[in-house]
Amino acid sequence: MTNSGSERPGEFELIAELFAPLATAPGAFGLTDDAAVVAPPAGHELVVTMDALIEGVHFFASDPPDLIARKALRVNLSDLAAKGCAPLGYLMALSIPRKLEMSWLRAFARGLAEDQQIFGISLFGGDTTATPGPLTIAITASGHLPVGRMLRRSGAKPGDVVFVSGTIGDAGGGLACLKGEGAHLSNIDRDHLVRRFQLPEPRTSLGPSLIGVASASLDVSDGLLADLGHIAAASAVRVVVEAERVPLSPALIALWPQAKERIVRAVTAGDDYEIAFTAPPSSRATIVAASARAGLPVAEIGRVETGQGVTLLDNGGQESPVNRRGYVHF
Amino acid sequence: MTNSGSERPGEFELIAELFAPLATAPGAFGLTDDAAVVAPPAGHELVVTMDALIEGVHFFASDPPDLIARKALRVNLSDLAAKGCAPLGYLMALSIPRKLEMSWLRAFARGLAEDQQIFGISLFGGDTTATPGPLTIAITASGHLPVGRMLRRSGAKPGDVVFVSGTIGDAGGGLACLKGEGAHLSNIDRDHLVRRFQLPEPRTSLGPSLIGVASASLDVSDGLLADLGHIAAASAVRVVVEAERVPLSPALIALWPQAKERIVRAVTAGDDYEIAFTAPPSSRATIVAASARAGLPVAEIGRVETGQGVTLLDNGGQESPVNRRGYVHF
Repeated sequence: MTNSGSERPGEFELIAELFAPLATAPGAFGLTDDAAVVAPPAGHELVVTMDALIEGVHFFASDPPDLIARKALRVNLSDLAAKGCAPLGYLMALSIPRKLEMSWLRAFARGLAEDQQIFGISLFGGDTTATPGPLTIAITASGHLPVGRMLRRSGAKPGDVVFVSGTIGDAGGGLACLKGEGAHLSNIDRDHLVRRFQLPEPRTSLGPSLIGVASASLDVSDGLLADLGHIAAASAVRVVVEAERVPLSPALIALWPQAKERIVRAVTAGDDYEIAFTAPPSSRATIVAASARAGLPVAEIGRVETGQGVTLLDNGGQESPVNRRGYVHF
Repeated sequence: MTNSGSERPGEFELIAELFAPLATAPGAFGLTDDAAVVAPPAGHELVVTMDALIEGVHFFASDPPDLIARKALRVNLSDLAAKGCAPLGYLMALSIPRKLEMSWLRAFARGLAEDQQIFGISLFGGDTTATPGPLTIAITASGHLPVGRMLRRSGAKPGDVVFVSGTIGDAGGGLACLKGEGAHLSNIDRDHLVRRFQLPEPRTSLGPSLIGVASASLDVSDGLLADLGHIAAASAVRVVVEAERVPLSPALIALWPQAKERIVRAVTAGDDYEIAFTAPPSSRATIVAASARAGLPVAEIGRVETGQGVTLLDNGGQESPVNRRGYVHF
């Protein structure tokens, strides 16, 4: 772990106090070196992914610092999970505005520590720098899986069934609440939705059991339809989603009572961090069992056909074409 | 490779045009997936490092975009080289101000392509996001080396000799020129120094041959004395540097004619990206041979003793204590 470009007194001390205790893997050398060693178990290979979160773009400056840290970490763990990976650890480049106080950074580090416990991972290294701009958190996460078995976007076949874990649209609903919607909601419903926006749940309990089962898989970050569009494009197939089968939480139904508006907003909102995947119909029983073991509902929401793009069938069976960014044309 | 948070039209197209062609490794899947597979050769393990560069902190907005890209990549490759690694590839999180034009980004990507050729590496993935702040480039680079052989900061022993590659202080001199010094210099000298600031040379031809030879090693980024201080601290030894043996370029000598000012500025300036390392005296012949093979001068500049900290011996043999940030107390 290195630091640079800062007049902040004690930048080395900041690393020693806040981040070195997070470097629990032997190969991280307690952040006392310039690089770390990452070794997957025998017969496994490393999978890496990188996502950055920026203040004012992906989160609000007023969000709780521990939740900002955990979201930055979890959006990466979600990618790994959807690829079938067990997570190993992460590197983090933190660009810190000078105004940020030590107490804020301590809470941020506590959030990371909490999630490291939950997901059994270590900090491997990174970089802290003072920035004249917004807080920017870039994280590279790595995980492992059996050699050659990464779940791709590209394996969906006509005849496959489309599945999604958990519920869709909650994070979008939570963001809407933070922007002023949902005054009619109960506190419980509102908190549920906001929580889903601020603290995604990477589906690490489900992802690895989809290896050898799912034909294509990814996490839902851009929006369900946009992400299924990525599978459609990479697999050269058409994906058909039945609107009424998309799983919605009671809180989201309470937030948006208008059914048509609700489904369109839910499937285009993004930030769900559920796993959307395809599999042949013969895998249904295996998927039901994996869902039960993970303690996570998995819903069957559509089918794969020859063709291209994504189509949403409304409750009357009417087709609504969807563009590649997930926008629904009514 | 993913993107988010941007109203910029064609962010997906930007990835497809600029960055997908850089994903040459099979495990990068042409940036068409959410993660990449990185596999070291048999008997080798992965080493990872991460550094971020920020506009206005590490480079000027007016710097040539290809050089900004190459410096962001090279500071990471320099870390790998000093650890004994051959580089494999990198992930990049790019936070792009909306004002940046496509022509600028094309030049930036061309710089990456050029260095990928030179160093034989691939882009593995990353993230592009529009930011309201300064351009921020976070790069995670990975390399490989034989299992368990990473060169550490912590192995220096009393009796060892201290070595450094190349010349020291040039980048600091180049930065001084960019800030207005050096009006008396020839264009050739000035260009040499500025180039050394803008385009570091990761010592990938030397680093891997130091495995089994160097007892401790790191790249000089914070400043020669500060970085030798890291070795002293991690190894629990004292490092003594003889000022007159520190290798300086003719251009730097021309820039700063005052010998005492010159050496103090050179050993504290940073951004050298040379390799500083220690080794037992019995390794001298091996190091001379490695230096010749690499086509890179290696100078013997001091010794390791019992004790702690770093001391600079001036040309009269007088000791100047140095604090842990590399500041010299006269």
